[in-house]
Amino acid sequence: MCEANAYLRNGDKEELILEAVDKVRPFDDGLLLEDIYGRRKFIRAKIKELALVDHKIILERE
Amino acid sequence: MCEANAYLRNGDKEELILEAVDKVRPFDDGLLLEDIYGRRKFIRAKIKELALVDHKIILERE
Repeated sequence: MCEANAYLRNGDKEELILEAVDKVRPFDDGLLLEDIYGRRKFIRAKIKELALVDHKIILERE
Repeated sequence: MCEANAYLRNGDKEELILEAVDKVRPFDDGLLLEDIYGRRKFIRAKIKELALVDHKIILERE
């Protein structure tokens, strides 16, 4: 499976927000994350970087 | 490998922009895509949706 884990970067720290993320949809006020089990989480952040081979989605507060 | 293919969505069509994308970095005026071979492509678009299990990164013009 090629899901990734979503982390919120804050300075030099990265907080794990959601594991096994399949879908990400940006909205005006944040991101809707959905994992491979269909669980959803909305977070007021934007995408800072994707590193898919490392299975990482890096987010940051807007 | 868990790279994805980047497609530009235009109406109901999807144009393949770059295969085997590893890294994506959003900038103010577009996205920098980098494939697993280190090849880079800058495109004036934003992320519309990620569907990682389907290996898809969907972009749209801003």
